[in-house]
Amino acid sequence: MSILIEDVLLGGRDTNVFIEGNIIAEIGRKQEADIVLDGRGKACIPGLINAHTHAAMTLFRGYADDLNLQEWLEGKIWPLETKLTAEDVFWGTKLACLEMIKGGTTTFNDMYFFMEEAARAVLEMGMRAVLSYGVIDLFDEGKAEKEIEATQDFIRSVEALKSSRINPALGPHAIYSVSRGTLESFKEMAMDRGFKVHIHLAETESEIKQSKEIYGRGPVRALEEMGLLGPWLVAAHSVWLADADVRLMGERGVSVVHNPTSNMKLAVGRAFPYKNMRAAGVNIALGTDGASSNNNLDMFEAMKLACLLQKFYTRDPTVLRAEEAVRMATGGGAAALGIAAGKIEEGKLADVALVSLRRPEMVPLFSLRSNIAYSANASAVDTVICDGKILMEDRRVDGEEEILRRAGEIARNVASR
Amino acid sequence: MSILIEDVLLGGRDTNVFIEGNIIAEIGRKQEADIVLDGRGKACIPGLINAHTHAAMTLFRGYADDLNLQEWLEGKIWPLETKLTAEDVFWGTKLACLEMIKGGTTTFNDMYFFMEEAARAVLEMGMRAVLSYGVIDLFDEGKAEKEIEATQDFIRSVEALKSSRINPALGPHAIYSVSRGTLESFKEMAMDRGFKVHIHLAETESEIKQSKEIYGRGPVRALEEMGLLGPWLVAAHSVWLADADVRLMGERGVSVVHNPTSNMKLAVGRAFPYKNMRAAGVNIALGTDGASSNNNLDMFEAMKLACLLQKFYTRDPTVLRAEEAVRMATGGGAAALGIAAGKIEEGKLADVALVSLRRPEMVPLFSLRSNIAYSANASAVDTVICDGKILMEDRRVDGEEEILRRAGEIARNVASR
Repeated sequence: MSILIEDVLLGGRDTNVFIEGNIIAEIGRKQEADIVLDGRGKACIPGLINAHTHAAMTLFRGYADDLNLQEWLEGKIWPLETKLTAEDVFWGTKLACLEMIKGGTTTFNDMYFFMEEAARAVLEMGMRAVLSYGVIDLFDEGKAEKEIEATQDFIRSVEALKSSRINPALGPHAIYSVSRGTLESFKEMAMDRGFKVHIHLAETESEIKQSKEIYGRGPVRALEEMGLLGPWLVAAHSVWLADADVRLMGERGVSVVHNPTSNMKLAVGRAFPYKNMRAAGVNIALGTDGASSNNNLDMFEAMKLACLLQKFYTRDPTVLRAEEAVRMATGGGAAALGIAAGKIEEGKLADVALVSLRRPEMVPLFSLRSNIAYSANASAVDTVICDGKILMEDRRVDGEEEILRRAGEIARNVASR
Repeated sequence: MSILIEDVLLGGRDTNVFIEGNIIAEIGRKQEADIVLDGRGKACIPGLINAHTHAAMTLFRGYADDLNLQEWLEGKIWPLETKLTAEDVFWGTKLACLEMIKGGTTTFNDMYFFMEEAARAVLEMGMRAVLSYGVIDLFDEGKAEKEIEATQDFIRSVEALKSSRINPALGPHAIYSVSRGTLESFKEMAMDRGFKVHIHLAETESEIKQSKEIYGRGPVRALEEMGLLGPWLVAAHSVWLADADVRLMGERGVSVVHNPTSNMKLAVGRAFPYKNMRAAGVNIALGTDGASSNNNLDMFEAMKLACLLQKFYTRDPTVLRAEEAVRMATGGGAAALGIAAGKIEEGKLADVALVSLRRPEMVPLFSLRSNIAYSANASAVDTVICDGKILMEDRRVDGEEEILRRAGEIARNVASR
């Protein structure tokens, strides 16, 4: 199977992008292909990479907003989560995939439960994902054993799918909810088998306090002591960090995922230390977090908010420029997740979004990156290709109506259980 | 001419909205109408009110981002503005109107120059607007005289249009760019003839310093001394204010316009004092500011950013709830501009937007206001009615292609002059 995207804007000029199988095979020459897409009036960008989310939480979108963190989690979200079934997670993940595809996202990094069902949803929807079962053992040895088993079961189930689009990862929830034993055994698995480790890190000030109570040091130092800081680590949030922590994360090759919308909505009290991260050479990715703390999965909005929050917080409008946000949402995510995507380049995976330029908010076109980071939203995306297959064309995705109907029914049902 | 919107979600139930002429005549009963719109799967909301913008600056979208304020204004924007012609402003305003209509905005409050052309654009596009010629006299008496004349000419030209959709207003740019004499004569005109006075107020810390140098007091106290604080005043930004200033603004019945996106992007260094404003009973509206400091005119995004910025800045996720943001973008704007819109209610002006609920980011529908303020963007709007006329149906606006083409050409041309 081959696809030619004809006369599309890429790198400042109109060119042609030839996809063969699941690879970007050639850029420049017009050639015969099984499918020809008209790229006129469109820009070709890498499929966006949502490097931290909890996909099935789309089911809780708008269920509990404008509340204090404790009231939100303990009073609203956790009680609903205990009622979720595998079927619910399947449809919640399908809804998330649909929303992400419609916003030009081709890959996401997910942490939740009933992850076999999440994998099935991703497989059906045609996206690429790194999936981790979210482990919480609350320092209980029996629970720890079960959670590690659940992780291993999940990994085996993903391996049985034999899909190059889905990679399993390890998902210790956070330093305050997972015991040292579990973290250390995950470190072994990461080293032995090359898994990524997806964790919430330094999201709130209270996490820092809890880490000091439990481990006698902050979360970064605790992870370092356990040997968990390394290129396998994908650390979501990474807000409440000392300068020395950031430098250490840079030295160890850790990737971080900034979630500006969630950080602002949940009022975590500080902004992601972007300048320090960049100076320390930390690889920076971008995420939306789950829909219940955002409330959408729009990576365009995340790019804009990343820039705006840094400018506002540091009182410097030159900090975090448009092109840096685009990099975070593409190449930064690809590096964090270890996938050969995030760039429109020969030899890379054919994960591509075409963005329409014939929309009022995209006119004039002085700077494509400015228009993408600051002016566009998810709806500017016209066509999405993942792994060499067209997932959306002219904004149409197969099965959309059924997903909206089923997910809507299930969400109402969950809330009334 | 009558329109019936059938089976549309409004106030938590499906109902019917009957529009006769330019008025919402009846809510509830199905009845015969010249045009029947299918409201199923849609919510009926008031047309949004963008209470502070510089519409024609769409021409500079993406032209100069990520720069320091001085470099941005003096090095980039002002040099281009001196080259603008009446024709440019006409097409820039058309582009802005198109973008706003496509985002459910039916009314905007504009300040710029060549405003006769802006009025012509608004008239053609079918929107409602309060338009002011932006006066800058730089404390030069000769210039002041000319600027007041230009204002009077503009008002006469709008009056000659005899359109109930366009109201002229007075537009003294800011306290540091307009002399006392001009401000005082505007006060007389506002009192005598009922005009609104649209001003930039307390946007940056340097404005406070300049006001103290010129008037020996901050901008609010200076305006109070000139008698300009009153229900006619529409004060954009209103960020750098002491508590006592806010209380005084409440007592005088001033309206303020919060522009969260612009404030963050330009790094004004403080957040709008929302809690104080609300406590002081100040009427609060919402705006996008011009496209060159935003870079879009999406009022949904402005609602979300207003909520997120307050939560983040005050470290309290309960501050500025979804419904308060929706009120700012509708009723708050209507009150600021003195128009009988901003609410879907019998007897109000027929300025209405239908928002599609059959979109991934709008599913599930636990809370319409949460989905509108936090999840939706401009593209969720399906149909727009202003003054009883349909401006957009199924996202199609008459003349869209020509506006995109002409405005794009003009922007390129301006930049190369």
